[in-house]
Amino acid sequence: MPVVLTQHAYGKSHVRLTKVTRHPDRHDLAEWAIDIRLGGDFAAAYTAGDNRQVVPTDTMKNAVYALARDHALGAPEDFARTLAGHFLDSYPQVASAAVHISVQPWERVTMGGLPFPHAFAGGPAGRRTCAVTATRDGQQVRAGIDGLPLLKTTDSAFRGFHRDAYTTLPDATDRIMATELTAEWLYADGAADWDECFAAVRRALVETFAGHVSEGVQQTLHAMGAAALAACPAADEITLTMPNRHRLLVNLAPFGRTNPNEVFVTTDEPFGVITGTLKRSV
Amino acid sequence: MPVVLTQHAYGKSHVRLTKVTRHPDRHDLAEWAIDIRLGGDFAAAYTAGDNRQVVPTDTMKNAVYALARDHALGAPEDFARTLAGHFLDSYPQVASAAVHISVQPWERVTMGGLPFPHAFAGGPAGRRTCAVTATRDGQQVRAGIDGLPLLKTTDSAFRGFHRDAYTTLPDATDRIMATELTAEWLYADGAADWDECFAAVRRALVETFAGHVSEGVQQTLHAMGAAALAACPAADEITLTMPNRHRLLVNLAPFGRTNPNEVFVTTDEPFGVITGTLKRSV
Amino acid sequence: MPVVLTQHAYGKSHVRLTKVTRHPDRHDLAEWAIDIRLGGDFAAAYTAGDNRQVVPTDTMKNAVYALARDHALGAPEDFARTLAGHFLDSYPQVASAAVHISVQPWERVTMGGLPFPHAFAGGPAGRRTCAVTATRDGQQVRAGIDGLPLLKTTDSAFRGFHRDAYTTLPDATDRIMATELTAEWLYADGAADWDECFAAVRRALVETFAGHVSEGVQQTLHAMGAAALAACPAADEITLTMPNRHRLLVNLAPFGRTNPNEVFVTTDEPFGVITGTLKRSV
Amino acid sequence: MPVVLTQHAYGKSHVRLTKVTRHPDRHDLAEWAIDIRLGGDFAAAYTAGDNRQVVPTDTMKNAVYALARDHALGAPEDFARTLAGHFLDSYPQVASAAVHISVQPWERVTMGGLPFPHAFAGGPAGRRTCAVTATRDGQQVRAGIDGLPLLKTTDSAFRGFHRDAYTTLPDATDRIMATELTAEWLYADGAADWDECFAAVRRALVETFAGHVSEGVQQTLHAMGAAALAACPAADEITLTMPNRHRLLVNLAPFGRTNPNEVFVTTDEPFGVITGTLKRSV
Repeated sequence: MPVVLTQHAYGKSHVRLTKVTRHPDRHDLAEWAIDIRLGGDFAAAYTAGDNRQVVPTDTMKNAVYALARDHALGAPEDFARTLAGHFLDSYPQVASAAVHISVQPWERVTMGGLPFPHAFAGGPAGRRTCAVTATRDGQQVRAGIDGLPLLKTTDSAFRGFHRDAYTTLPDATDRIMATELTAEWLYADGAADWDECFAAVRRALVETFAGHVSEGVQQTLHAMGAAALAACPAADEITLTMPNRHRLLVNLAPFGRTNPNEVFVTTDEPFGVITGTLKRSV
Repeated sequence: MPVVLTQHAYGKSHVRLTKVTRHPDRHDLAEWAIDIRLGGDFAAAYTAGDNRQVVPTDTMKNAVYALARDHALGAPEDFARTLAGHFLDSYPQVASAAVHISVQPWERVTMGGLPFPHAFAGGPAGRRTCAVTATRDGQQVRAGIDGLPLLKTTDSAFRGFHRDAYTTLPDATDRIMATELTAEWLYADGAADWDECFAAVRRALVETFAGHVSEGVQQTLHAMGAAALAACPAADEITLTMPNRHRLLVNLAPFGRTNPNEVFVTTDEPFGVITGTLKRSV
Repeated sequence: MPVVLTQHAYGKSHVRLTKVTRHPDRHDLAEWAIDIRLGGDFAAAYTAGDNRQVVPTDTMKNAVYALARDHALGAPEDFARTLAGHFLDSYPQVASAAVHISVQPWERVTMGGLPFPHAFAGGPAGRRTCAVTATRDGQQVRAGIDGLPLLKTTDSAFRGFHRDAYTTLPDATDRIMATELTAEWLYADGAADWDECFAAVRRALVETFAGHVSEGVQQTLHAMGAAALAACPAADEITLTMPNRHRLLVNLAPFGRTNPNEVFVTTDEPFGVITGTLKRSV
Repeated sequence: MPVVLTQHAYGKSHVRLTKVTRHPDRHDLAEWAIDIRLGGDFAAAYTAGDNRQVVPTDTMKNAVYALARDHALGAPEDFARTLAGHFLDSYPQVASAAVHISVQPWERVTMGGLPFPHAFAGGPAGRRTCAVTATRDGQQVRAGIDGLPLLKTTDSAFRGFHRDAYTTLPDATDRIMATELTAEWLYADGAADWDECFAAVRRALVETFAGHVSEGVQQTLHAMGAAALAACPAADEITLTMPNRHRLLVNLAPFGRTNPNEVFVTTDEPFGVITGTLKRSV
């Protein structure tokens, strides 16, 4: 039966790297999980078992560790660009290289109020990520935050929505809003002060979530995205995904108690999902 | 700062449904997890907190349970189409409705070799899935398998690949190939005997994986995709994703033992990922 | 400050082993995850950093792979006993050795109705386990099943229970009973036909769950345990843990529909947990 | 076949509670997952399906939410004692009540450097836990930390250990030590300033891990346990479990590079496990 291979790619996932940089006064720590995906002239491996063009995924993994030795690991965006460039520069058969890095959130231990030089503890939830997609014509750099839990206890309503025969949800004027934010933004020119931008976007997202007087997750998402773009001029576009981790007010009437918006059931599922992409307009 | 909302969607995820159909001689069981995503005229909720067009995700959830009462739950594709149609038909503001169903693999218990009428045990790994995307212009029906573990102990080589300064992998003429297959195929006309096609595609994928004499995961993937399209004329296109769950031969020489391709370390990460899409050609 | 070390142990966990046995007509596959825990004369390592008695956990791992080469891997109980014996025999400082094995459920692929010689697919949920605890005075052999999903759609009631001011649950005469069974049984003499006993106990547990007319999870658990001990004379004692994975009947009245015990919400949490240990009485 | 029920218990797990306490100037947030287990006169439910003594697990769940309304939720230990007492006091058939609470780590959002009154973000990894076991004769209160990631980049050796035919591990004078600490300590009199003790123990564990010059995980564990007992006079005994999350130095020689203790592979498995219990001596 005649078939045609219309799309293909391959790579290595979860290459896990710990690098220690030993300064005289302190050690720095980077722990990253790296995913690599290559596109290009690999069809013969699929159609004919001809592997001559195939760069083994094991080779990709080796390159990660070798290049991690050569390069200072500061912002993950820099290393992702280095890696993507390496694959394009080294292999003519590679037409596109995508590198995704997820940062393990370690925080330096403090002792007696002072930063300790060589020990770290698990940091706050919500991972920093970046994604570089490169071809011979250019590259796109994205940064992101993955799974950041956020919750506000007031200034969140949901009312005036469409009602029909399947609607039982009452209007809420004051509810808990809780989510695990995932955000990814695009750097227009593929350049920025990565660390500063990340910090500014993260702060804008968290503070806007906190301070926004909300008529719904959609509106809060929009406000957060706009604030993020305002906080980081280098970012041109941002996509936010906000699952709605519902807290359900418990009916305590059967037990002779009121429940003045105090006691809730935490639920994981089902959950709402709200997504949106905002772009800077000219 | 001027921003524009370029994309948005929302819905309910992990609506978990168990339905029992009580026939005189036996009970049938369907347990599904359902995700719904709607696109359409919802921008005002984002930009202005105007929820008048918003169908609450709670309403979507209610509709799932109500419609599950009305309809026999046979193939998940039928119910996904029913649900997607419901959202388009009920709400003029909805422009697109996507419904994804993941089937919990229950198998009827046998007793004394005979099927027992009303008890079930956990079935084989690898979930059946389907995804319907519908607009007012038509709909696409996809079916799939999620996370099916497959392993073969021979007839798998990987050699003759590109070698360079970062390559340490030796040629392998006889290695273990192991994966957790995810596949999704598109029904050209949005119609098929869903259950028969699913069974035929699954069988073609498993048997081709088993019987193929492989020069690499890429080649096996291609053979599996071609076999799947051959087995189900209603399917027009198939995408396969095959992580390479490496088994590493243990070096037993330090312990005075040979290891003639017998004893391996099972690894989860890092793992290779091979993907490809095949389309029926005319 | 004076402190005393009252208990200590250490070992290696998740040693993951794949072994292929290459018979002329077929290959056999064993994939196991092995945990080792040693007790003994290791206090000096804790109190003084004196590691002279410490068998590195890396050495334990090496022994697993080396011994897996030497021994046919049939029933996991045999290999667990071999490993536990190895640690006691090799190291005078070891007073107790515990070995736990969890079996990855692979099933041989069939092709054209016949078993295929060298390919495997993921088998049913619910892992076979075993646990051997050995000292110089003897050993205990336990076998088990981990996380076996079971569900019955009728012949399950829960009524006549204690009612008080915090009770809202109505009596149920016909409900779904669903669980993920974990069971572990003890072989009285540390000996049995392991595979036959495992199959007999598993069958007894599943069939009793299915066929029992239940007044509650507790009663079903007791019946299952008694049936298991009856099915395997070598087993002296069995402990069952049965989470109660509640299926909640959906109230469809707001949507103008009845719900005659048909449509349920699948829930993961909160869940009931029922445990019990049965012993053969003399 | 005659069998006897030698042990039994039951309860509700993962009762998930969110409580908001609305002070004039700020809101406080508690999100807890609560497990309850009761022992007592419940054998008839197992042996005869007689549920008259059985307190439904649904009733337990209701009691959690109702009592959460009545009581200020400060330290989880207080609420665990309240709950355990409730079950003993309310039901003569209950002989023992165990309550375990796991605290979701939320941290108050800051805005412009100031604490924001009603928004929270995900806090550091490592959950606070407590466990109360109560009978009519008394109760035991334990507190703990679950899964706290800790890593130090130097001051960690492992050498001078037992060597034999299965040993390939070289002596290490300077390696990474990484773990996910789980600790549980017992309050001798069932009383303490819970929050202060938790903070003191956590600090002692983290700072001792950081500052200890280690000859092995065992020695560090012992030092951490001793420091914890010293930091909290109310604690009498502490059990620590420290998986050894190995970082493996990458051999970069094939790529023409040295690796002066800089670049490591992060591994999840296999992992060492070291446990120990320390008790205050008189």
